[in-house]
Amino acid sequence: MMNEKQPPKTHLCRYTEDAIYVRDASLVEELIGVMSFTEMTFFTITGRRPTSGETRILDAVLVTLMEHGLTPSAIAARLIYSSAPESLQAGVSAGLLAVGSVFVGTMEGCAQLLQRLLSDPASLDQRARTIAQEHKTARKPVPGFGHPLHRPDDPRSPKLLALAEQENVQGRHIAALRALAKAVDAVYGKHLTINATGAVAALLGEIGIPWQIMRGFAVISRSAGLVAHIAEEQAEPTMRHIWASVEHNVPYEGGSSDSR
Amino acid sequence: MMNEKQPPKTHLCRYTEDAIYVRDASLVEELIGVMSFTEMTFFTITGRRPTSGETRILDAVLVTLMEHGLTPSAIAARLIYSSAPESLQAGVSAGLLAVGSVFVGTMEGCAQLLQRLLSDPASLDQRARTIAQEHKTARKPVPGFGHPLHRPDDPRSPKLLALAEQENVQGRHIAALRALAKAVDAVYGKHLTINATGAVAALLGEIGIPWQIMRGFAVISRSAGLVAHIAEEQAEPTMRHIWASVEHNVPYEGGSSDSR
Amino acid sequence: MMNEKQPPKTHLCRYTEDAIYVRDASLVEELIGVMSFTEMTFFTITGRRPTSGETRILDAVLVTLMEHGLTPSAIAARLIYSSAPESLQAGVSAGLLAVGSVFVGTMEGCAQLLQRLLSDPASLDQRARTIAQEHKTARKPVPGFGHPLHRPDDPRSPKLLALAEQENVQGRHIAALRALAKAVDAVYGKHLTINATGAVAALLGEIGIPWQIMRGFAVISRSAGLVAHIAEEQAEPTMRHIWASVEHNVPYEGGSSDSR
Amino acid sequence: MMNEKQPPKTHLCRYTEDAIYVRDASLVEELIGVMSFTEMTFFTITGRRPTSGETRILDAVLVTLMEHGLTPSAIAARLIYSSAPESLQAGVSAGLLAVGSVFVGTMEGCAQLLQRLLSDPASLDQRARTIAQEHKTARKPVPGFGHPLHRPDDPRSPKLLALAEQENVQGRHIAALRALAKAVDAVYGKHLTINATGAVAALLGEIGIPWQIMRGFAVISRSAGLVAHIAEEQAEPTMRHIWASVEHNVPYEGGSSDSR
Repeated sequence: MMNEKQPPKTHLCRYTEDAIYVRDASLVEELIGVMSFTEMTFFTITGRRPTSGETRILDAVLVTLMEHGLTPSAIAARLIYSSAPESLQAGVSAGLLAVGSVFVGTMEGCAQLLQRLLSDPASLDQRARTIAQEHKTARKPVPGFGHPLHRPDDPRSPKLLALAEQENVQGRHIAALRALAKAVDAVYGKHLTINATGAVAALLGEIGIPWQIMRGFAVISRSAGLVAHIAEEQAEPTMRHIWASVEHNVPYEGGSSDSR
Repeated sequence: MMNEKQPPKTHLCRYTEDAIYVRDASLVEELIGVMSFTEMTFFTITGRRPTSGETRILDAVLVTLMEHGLTPSAIAARLIYSSAPESLQAGVSAGLLAVGSVFVGTMEGCAQLLQRLLSDPASLDQRARTIAQEHKTARKPVPGFGHPLHRPDDPRSPKLLALAEQENVQGRHIAALRALAKAVDAVYGKHLTINATGAVAALLGEIGIPWQIMRGFAVISRSAGLVAHIAEEQAEPTMRHIWASVEHNVPYEGGSSDSR
Repeated sequence: MMNEKQPPKTHLCRYTEDAIYVRDASLVEELIGVMSFTEMTFFTITGRRPTSGETRILDAVLVTLMEHGLTPSAIAARLIYSSAPESLQAGVSAGLLAVGSVFVGTMEGCAQLLQRLLSDPASLDQRARTIAQEHKTARKPVPGFGHPLHRPDDPRSPKLLALAEQENVQGRHIAALRALAKAVDAVYGKHLTINATGAVAALLGEIGIPWQIMRGFAVISRSAGLVAHIAEEQAEPTMRHIWASVEHNVPYEGGSSDSR
Repeated sequence: MMNEKQPPKTHLCRYTEDAIYVRDASLVEELIGVMSFTEMTFFTITGRRPTSGETRILDAVLVTLMEHGLTPSAIAARLIYSSAPESLQAGVSAGLLAVGSVFVGTMEGCAQLLQRLLSDPASLDQRARTIAQEHKTARKPVPGFGHPLHRPDDPRSPKLLALAEQENVQGRHIAALRALAKAVDAVYGKHLTINATGAVAALLGEIGIPWQIMRGFAVISRSAGLVAHIAEEQAEPTMRHIWASVEHNVPYEGGSSDSR
């Protein structure tokens, strides 16, 4: 298996005795004290320095996704941390494993729809209507739309979209999302909110993030939220209380699950 | 186990139909578009809004720790991602599990030494000398000092310390670190650099982060670095090449490990 | 969300002051010293005591999947363990995250094909031919067939199939796999081996394991293999050697990945 | 870092076009259909074929540790699985991260005490008394003793010890554990049960497992238990119910945790 003609390269980092370079920029001379975390994240992942508008949009996305209370992700992080407190990173890792198809997959699904809208030569409204109709016919939820609690509207979405528009982005992904929203309401015959993952998909699209890596930004943001849960768990442990409440609320019933 | 008088509470997040509050601040009205990721991280973890100086210091710490090339953490993230590309978060989680005692434990160890220096009533120089002598006698490395590659000095440390001093921090942790550095050189009879984890321990101490949660900031920063490695793995896969190179470089030798 | 009429139950375990029951069987009186690990695993997962033939088949499957040398899974486990040796379980967890679509997904894919063959009323050979033709037309590999190294035949597959047939299983999944193998060779115009994941899919099908949980048996078996790698890493550390060899074999190239 | 004279080797597995060897034994000819999972696990980890007595003891240990109901480990596995059902292995990995110091560390702690007892030249009873007294003075629990629920005695321990004694083990670790139990009762002035982790430590010691890798056997056994929880979660989902019950039982309280 060593016979590839061209071995893969890395473009991320090199170091010498007296310097470290990330993407060819000197960490000490050009990055520390110069870039914010958000700028450095964009730069390291994309290889390009963000504009101030792109930074502001990425900050808004990361701030939006950080913390949602005692979600499955946060509960898992707390349980694991309190079972292995010598290994704080394991608590965060366990919680991040929840950033999967159920809670974050809709961001990618919406981004893929926006990309399909943008690459199709037909009129935007017509394409949007086709997509909405397809989902309705297949009885599949349209990713990026609807919310079980925030009705009639997810308050985060208009804020995020307005913020991006203030930064003079090109606006193609946002326009596609708005066209899709209009079509969804028409086809379903009722108002379905653009939810936060829908708005985030459009914003990340506007700053040039491909859908394939979008989930990574949810992971980064959640890592900070999970550290906050672990800090709170250190101050006010919940593990044994959660354990007892789950045992109480999911009772044992004799026999096998086959015979229920 | 449900008989605790006072069940634990959470102070991180609550939500209603039309609003989400993090630490009592409205996410939409007060945080999105207002706070940077770094400010939001500090606020969510500590419950306190950072000053601009604290934000600048935390940004410097997070930028410093993000990316170090093809470390064990990054290799693991790439291997796992390429084995389960449907689960990007698993690649990051696997890599974060390397943020343990060997590579990041020294940050906590150094922070504990600084705390011990700050809580002891004896003169700072005398206490520092005692600590250095203890480590030398026990033939244990002093956490936060020395570097296998960056000699004579880790270039990140003076930059980080100077940056914090420009922000008018109180300076007690930095003074303790400098006193310890002087004592280490004297006791060991040679120059040992303050390394990046030592400088980071002092900076996080200056902005009020307890050592018990410090490792969390390394986890947050590394999560962004690992997403960058996964984005590169998507563009230029290394998994099969790494696999082959490890098989080549760690050869099979017959017999059991007992008989070697 | 607390308003479900019927809260979910668990059927796995309950305990009292002086006894523990797994699936209604007394752990101390009926299981410890009575069941092997493999019998207990089958019993706990399915709720049914295995026959001796089912146990023998499951043992064969678990023995087959345990150890494959320095795979990505094993490399990740070693790197994480050596970075956080205080947390042996994290090394295993990291390695298990590689049990994803690329290396084990084919087992599930093959099991789904077998199920489709078994539920279709047309003649087995005709259905098998349809499936083989579909894959060839779509230029997709047939899951459970072919192997990059083991040519012309994966030596594990005939052994596993023969072993199951000796145990007087019903044989429907094995017959379906053999029919598919015949169709694959005919449609592709060359011999493609039934590989180990194909044989395992048929064997697990024969003992009543639904494809949705099959991957779990690979996880169980690999957990033992990864503990063996960690034991070897304790005796003969490879982490720094692997790190160096990867840095050497995946060199840095200046510029961003965009400009390559 | 490539300059080591002797690169590390692996002794676990090699393969050719038509064979796979684990520890020099042919997988197809000597292991599949011949060894049980438990024998293969012992063989792969230690490099030695177990006796039938050692196999029986290891089976008893693995059966004992597999399943304990809705523990933090199982809850985390269920929450992660239901958040990312495309990634069954991530659910198991998350749950295994709970096999840390709080729940399993006592096994290692007890094994270390037994080793200390066995390497000390003084009389066994005297050494045991010293150890018990040290723990009482330091107000530290003696690892392997006491149980919050199973009083006065953990029912698993006498079963495990009797089973090992029937297998004609050498008995040194068991004798040390019994001596320690006698000393603990005398020094504390009350009966403290040998708990399951204490008995397991003695049994694994009897079959030659060093304490450094003991935790790995808990990991292997728990992996099967967690797969059972995930299979049950597939049949009868609990994730949203657990989420709701935790939100209900750990209520939000305004203000920061600093001000509580």
